[in-house]
Amino acid sequence: MDALPNLDDPNLYREDKSGLYKDLAKLPGDYPRPSEGYPAPYGVIGLGEGWWPAELLRSRLPDTLARGTTFVLAGGFGLGRLEGLLTAARAESQRVVVLGPGTEAEVKLPAHPLAPYRYLRFVLDAIGEGALGEAVDRALAAELAALRPEVPTENNPAKLLAWGLIERVPLWVASDRYPMLPQALQQVFARIGKSLSIAPPPGALEFFITALEARHEQGDPLTALVLGDDAYTRLAEEVLKTRVAEVEKIEPQGAEGPIPEALALWYRLAWTAYYLALLYKKDPGDHAVLTKLREAAE
Amino acid sequence: MDALPNLDDPNLYREDKSGLYKDLAKLPGDYPRPSEGYPAPYGVIGLGEGWWPAELLRSRLPDTLARGTTFVLAGGFGLGRLEGLLTAARAESQRVVVLGPGTEAEVKLPAHPLAPYRYLRFVLDAIGEGALGEAVDRALAAELAALRPEVPTENNPAKLLAWGLIERVPLWVASDRYPMLPQALQQVFARIGKSLSIAPPPGALEFFITALEARHEQGDPLTALVLGDDAYTRLAEEVLKTRVAEVEKIEPQGAEGPIPEALALWYRLAWTAYYLALLYKKDPGDHAVLTKLREAAE
Repeated sequence: MDALPNLDDPNLYREDKSGLYKDLAKLPGDYPRPSEGYPAPYGVIGLGEGWWPAELLRSRLPDTLARGTTFVLAGGFGLGRLEGLLTAARAESQRVVVLGPGTEAEVKLPAHPLAPYRYLRFVLDAIGEGALGEAVDRALAAELAALRPEVPTENNPAKLLAWGLIERVPLWVASDRYPMLPQALQQVFARIGKSLSIAPPPGALEFFITALEARHEQGDPLTALVLGDDAYTRLAEEVLKTRVAEVEKIEPQGAEGPIPEALALWYRLAWTAYYLALLYKKDPGDHAVLTKLREAAE
Repeated sequence: MDALPNLDDPNLYREDKSGLYKDLAKLPGDYPRPSEGYPAPYGVIGLGEGWWPAELLRSRLPDTLARGTTFVLAGGFGLGRLEGLLTAARAESQRVVVLGPGTEAEVKLPAHPLAPYRYLRFVLDAIGEGALGEAVDRALAAELAALRPEVPTENNPAKLLAWGLIERVPLWVASDRYPMLPQALQQVFARIGKSLSIAPPPGALEFFITALEARHEQGDPLTALVLGDDAYTRLAEEVLKTRVAEVEKIEPQGAEGPIPEALALWYRLAWTAYYLALLYKKDPGDHAVLTKLREAAE
């Protein structure tokens, strides 16, 4: 790598050819609003980019298909699965609302690394969980104030974290309070930060300790990113601190409840991924490469 | 690394201090049998080592708690979660059957990297799915005939695959037919093969392409292991073949249906992990290191 760039130099942001900065900075509140009421009870199914918001909603909407309204979060490459899901939803539900980038979508949501937030917020408003949605937005707005490019490196947790992750492979260690957050972070870290990372399987403690104890060298490129605080994360920290290059604890600031906290952590890591791409002098956007993929998939 | 060892040399197997070879070789059929009938309907919950078998049973037992009998597959480090689950199960179910290594277990199943098979087989017999269980055992027996140490390297798919994985990081790419197989393989590969590996998040195509397109060097240590064949695995192969060091297709041989196939693939990779540990001159067992973890967790 050449001389490392300066994240406080406005010229560096020219690498951001697609202006992803603007999308990140305006994200809190940037989502399509429901324009009508939908009949209860509600169910939700997610594909591709819609997968994580559907998981997050699982605590509110345990059903996938519902008699009243089923929301189909149809992001990404359905590869034929969408059609079957729609048929099943239409057989079961009085109303089926498809969100996504495709022609079958009633609510248009372009493919985008930040789309999971938008799917989530639409559905929260649509099912009468607007107060929870506002708590999510407050959590994101609080993060934004600290993370935006105008905040210099020494006061900016995302810039500082990005510096620590150069040429490292993140290993996501999340509290049970945030199920599937590691997988959501794998996605955003690849799509914006252009970097692979490792989400451990269930039974993560055995996974960490057996692999790293016998072959220590595997820990050299790893930074364990510990999200939240509970008996599992504390034990994981204990196991990992002598076995990986670095352990960083990341806690949500002032968010209220598991869903706002999970989104706040995700948003912090999205900004971190953004700065990391700039440190690699890569365009943080992914539109061009995903267009290629879309062509291959057709 | 010194001169590489010879997997066809019986002396090499001295590294296997805990005799894991014997557990692998006798696995088909090696599980505790139910000694009584259990009232239907049935539900299943899994923790730790019991997590994957509970997922596999999801297609047969969609409920976690059931009015009749709930099977609690209590492997691994509950960290306080087991108690709450047991209380909920006892409130809901006429009969609660706990399997696992702990004192609360009615059916004893010691902690072991191959325990997922044993949990699965007990429950299949207990819920009247013995025919499916026998199909699993036939699939494993067919694999065993080709994979055991007596079969020389040139005819042994697990030995050959292990050679190809030295100093590589597996990237698991599994057909939708085998949900959560990548996570099960992460576990067995760490516990027996002492090696980290990557299970991609949902929306795996975007994950692969965006990370690897911008920073090609990340693909150098990766071998993509493609399990099964469908529209997704074919497109993933297309995307990965120019972006990782190697792509290997692995298909189940002669297994009948998704669960026997998933177990056959898992068993093949367990043998591969076993040979890989020997190539690294490591003990494939994990009893000693997990004893340490158990002490830390108490």
